[in-house]
Amino acid sequence: MLTKDKRILIVGLGLMGGSYAEALTAKGYDVGAVTRSKESIDYALSKGIISCGTTSVTAEMIGGYDILVFALYPHIFLQWLTDYQQFIKPGALLTDVTGVKSSLVEQVQRILRPDLEFVGAHPMAGREVYGVKNSTAAIFAGANYIVTPTPSNTPDAIATVEDIGREIGCARISRLSPSEHDTMIGFLSQLTHCIAVALMTGKDVEHMSAYTGDSFRDLTRIARINDEMWSELFLINRDALLEQMDLFTGQMQILRDAIASGDTQTLRSMMRLSSERRALFDK
Amino acid sequence: MLTKDKRILIVGLGLMGGSYAEALTAKGYDVGAVTRSKESIDYALSKGIISCGTTSVTAEMIGGYDILVFALYPHIFLQWLTDYQQFIKPGALLTDVTGVKSSLVEQVQRILRPDLEFVGAHPMAGREVYGVKNSTAAIFAGANYIVTPTPSNTPDAIATVEDIGREIGCARISRLSPSEHDTMIGFLSQLTHCIAVALMTGKDVEHMSAYTGDSFRDLTRIARINDEMWSELFLINRDALLEQMDLFTGQMQILRDAIASGDTQTLRSMMRLSSERRALFDK
Repeated sequence: MLTKDKRILIVGLGLMGGSYAEALTAKGYDVGAVTRSKESIDYALSKGIISCGTTSVTAEMIGGYDILVFALYPHIFLQWLTDYQQFIKPGALLTDVTGVKSSLVEQVQRILRPDLEFVGAHPMAGREVYGVKNSTAAIFAGANYIVTPTPSNTPDAIATVEDIGREIGCARISRLSPSEHDTMIGFLSQLTHCIAVALMTGKDVEHMSAYTGDSFRDLTRIARINDEMWSELFLINRDALLEQMDLFTGQMQILRDAIASGDTQTLRSMMRLSSERRALFDK
Repeated sequence: MLTKDKRILIVGLGLMGGSYAEALTAKGYDVGAVTRSKESIDYALSKGIISCGTTSVTAEMIGGYDILVFALYPHIFLQWLTDYQQFIKPGALLTDVTGVKSSLVEQVQRILRPDLEFVGAHPMAGREVYGVKNSTAAIFAGANYIVTPTPSNTPDAIATVEDIGREIGCARISRLSPSEHDTMIGFLSQLTHCIAVALMTGKDVEHMSAYTGDSFRDLTRIARINDEMWSELFLINRDALLEQMDLFTGQMQILRDAIASGDTQTLRSMMRLSSERRALFDK
């Protein structure tokens, strides 16, 4: 269970880390941060969203925290644990915000000290801009939050990580296995980002803003994408993403065939199915 | 030029026709309507968005209007003209709201009485619901409005149809040839609707609302689609739409190959291009 006496350390003070810090500080937790940029620490201190922050990872700083929230690129997260986990307080709870889970959770749990526990989490929230200066707790309002426990996790640690999701303001907390999570996210998030990138790169669209309706703007909002982070996430989740891309392009081919052959019945029945299903999301 | 003494007739009082009626009545024009449903006429009269309406097309009713705005399915529009254009006032101006132009504009101008003039228009606005009861002038706020004149149109008629776009509240008025319009709309609107339908129909997504982020909701908002209207629009614009679908799936294939082969450089350069281009749309 998450109680107000738990001191929480954010590792990686970017858009997501900063938004966690703001939300948890507002709820009355004592929140610290370590990150590479002194400017980010100074900004967060000046805004009052952390009580303490540093760019140098020391036993003295790290060892004072009960819960660590990692908001780092996956490869940096693993390297950080290798380098610094000896500083972490015995019995501390670790969680993260990373958008892929299977290989990451497995690797973290394999290298982690036996007296520490890691429970993966993924808040389904974000913005098309980066950095702590763009962070805001508002991104969590109404958002989904997925926890990805494994058989090695304890009920209390899972419950505490679920509490974090509630405390930052997420609307719906769910549990999935790491591989279920990755299939789901391959479809719902990574495939949609691929679609947006494909729409923006296939032709010169720069002169088209006089002609767009809401639909094109909606479909390409996420075409503003952090290329370093998303290319890493795509490749870590390669198999699940490729499977979802193939399912999608297969469905586009069915539509294409129906249009080419003038098959109104197939077109209309696909449109009716899509309308029925989408209506459920509006409830 | 559009002046307040022009009487305007809406033919087809659905979502778009009703929204035109509301916007133009609010601007002080005398607006009438003909449509098939008595209920729609009664509703529009009770809301005060038309001054006069009927379900029966008569010379007396039609002949009193200077401008006719057709908000009908394409095949019904052509049939209506064939059946009733003898009732239209000599010298009247005709326009429409239809989402495809090349074949339609060409057919309308071919069958039209020589003393009448038709200038095509397409307000890039809509909703995922239908009917006059869902109509609202608010859909035009900030919207793009495309006029598709041909060499047979007069400058005054083109200017008047552009004035209508301004009067209903559209933000940006542009001109394209009918075939330029159809290529543009095949990409910006029809392809995006195909993508949304493909996303919703390829797998069972009904249990996924606990896991979606904004991106999936944004990309599938338009998956609620009027199957009768859109299947007709897709097939009328078949060649342009197929070309845009093929460009898009080719781009998805490039992304797929880069992911499958772990080609980070290609992924990142496509993402950077898409981010740069999309940023222009936010200005």
